[in-house]
Amino acid sequence: MSTEQNPNVVRHHYQTKREDRERILNQRATIIWFTGLSGSGKSTLADAVERELQSRGYKTYLLDGDNLRHGLNADLDFSESGRQENIRRTGEVSALLFDAGLIVLTAFVSPYRSDRDKIRSLFPEGRFIEVFVDCPIEVCEQRDIKGLYAKARQGLIPDFTGVSAPYEPPLHPELTIHSHLHDEPACTQQVIQTCEPRLRHDTP
Amino acid sequence: MSTEQNPNVVRHHYQTKREDRERILNQRATIIWFTGLSGSGKSTLADAVERELQSRGYKTYLLDGDNLRHGLNADLDFSESGRQENIRRTGEVSALLFDAGLIVLTAFVSPYRSDRDKIRSLFPEGRFIEVFVDCPIEVCEQRDIKGLYAKARQGLIPDFTGVSAPYEPPLHPELTIHSHLHDEPACTQQVIQTCEPRLRHDTP
Repeated sequence: MSTEQNPNVVRHHYQTKREDRERILNQRATIIWFTGLSGSGKSTLADAVERELQSRGYKTYLLDGDNLRHGLNADLDFSESGRQENIRRTGEVSALLFDAGLIVLTAFVSPYRSDRDKIRSLFPEGRFIEVFVDCPIEVCEQRDIKGLYAKARQGLIPDFTGVSAPYEPPLHPELTIHSHLHDEPACTQQVIQTCEPRLRHDTP
Repeated sequence: MSTEQNPNVVRHHYQTKREDRERILNQRATIIWFTGLSGSGKSTLADAVERELQSRGYKTYLLDGDNLRHGLNADLDFSESGRQENIRRTGEVSALLFDAGLIVLTAFVSPYRSDRDKIRSLFPEGRFIEVFVDCPIEVCEQRDIKGLYAKARQGLIPDFTGVSAPYEPPLHPELTIHSHLHDEPACTQQVIQTCEPRLRHDTP
């Protein structure tokens, strides 16, 4: 019997709520979810946005697909079920950090629309900002910072997004960034301009 | 192949470090780990301590065994492997919240010494405070707020800690609380007195 159906797991209701934490942190907890191909610049952009938000006094945390796979998700492989469980846990961890009152930035390829929409549904309206880092695969492949596209083309990495597995672009992202057309500071400013008004504690 | 051994999972090194977050939050990230029998008063005490820390301006988060089993760990059962994975994920999530700069309070039975020590080893020296909520099983069983001891005695819950599964008390906890001898405010003060000096940002 998994826990979900177990009547002996009793939920404790605590005094301190997310609203209390948000008041102390003086901000509205929010998820900023960066999605895009490997090499599109998600991590670099998320890193720069976090730094800018920190300099403006926001309390943030950044979750990164690769880094999470070294800890919490180290037991998972890249099979379909492994990927699904990876993204499920990521959503649940994002929800905990959100509940802690933080601005959570995430950088995951997250290629499937249904997975992203499932995570969006964990959060209240307006608290999930999907940022589509839209960079043509030719550019990503030319950069190939980690050498993964070369390996994927040689068949050494199976089910590689964009090469041998699909990427489903968001239909209605809150923001689309063309990381191949603008430099990093410009892209960072675009994200900040869209996000910051939503993060202030006095925003209704 | 699990991720741990996968050379294609490349760790991204971000600009913002825990030290930056701690400076902005004006505190030292710390784990306060409450361990004890079901019914010993862990959750109630952790709740009261969190409230007191919040009132003193600390930025906290509380992780609770039962609540986590409704989300991140909802897929796990209470078999030995399910319990081990439950506690492993809990340690990893605590490490993420710690990395975010927060004071993390946890309330888990966590009956095995080796599991607790494994989690302790994830954190730098002095940043893991083990609070043993030491309450005689007779008292826990008499309270039996959730009705679990009665069910365990009837054999309806297998491997119930203290009844049909062992509880290994900590050998060198940072603090032992006798929740049956002192009232809640007194217990809360004991925890605060031990913990607060360690949480200040100017503590070396």
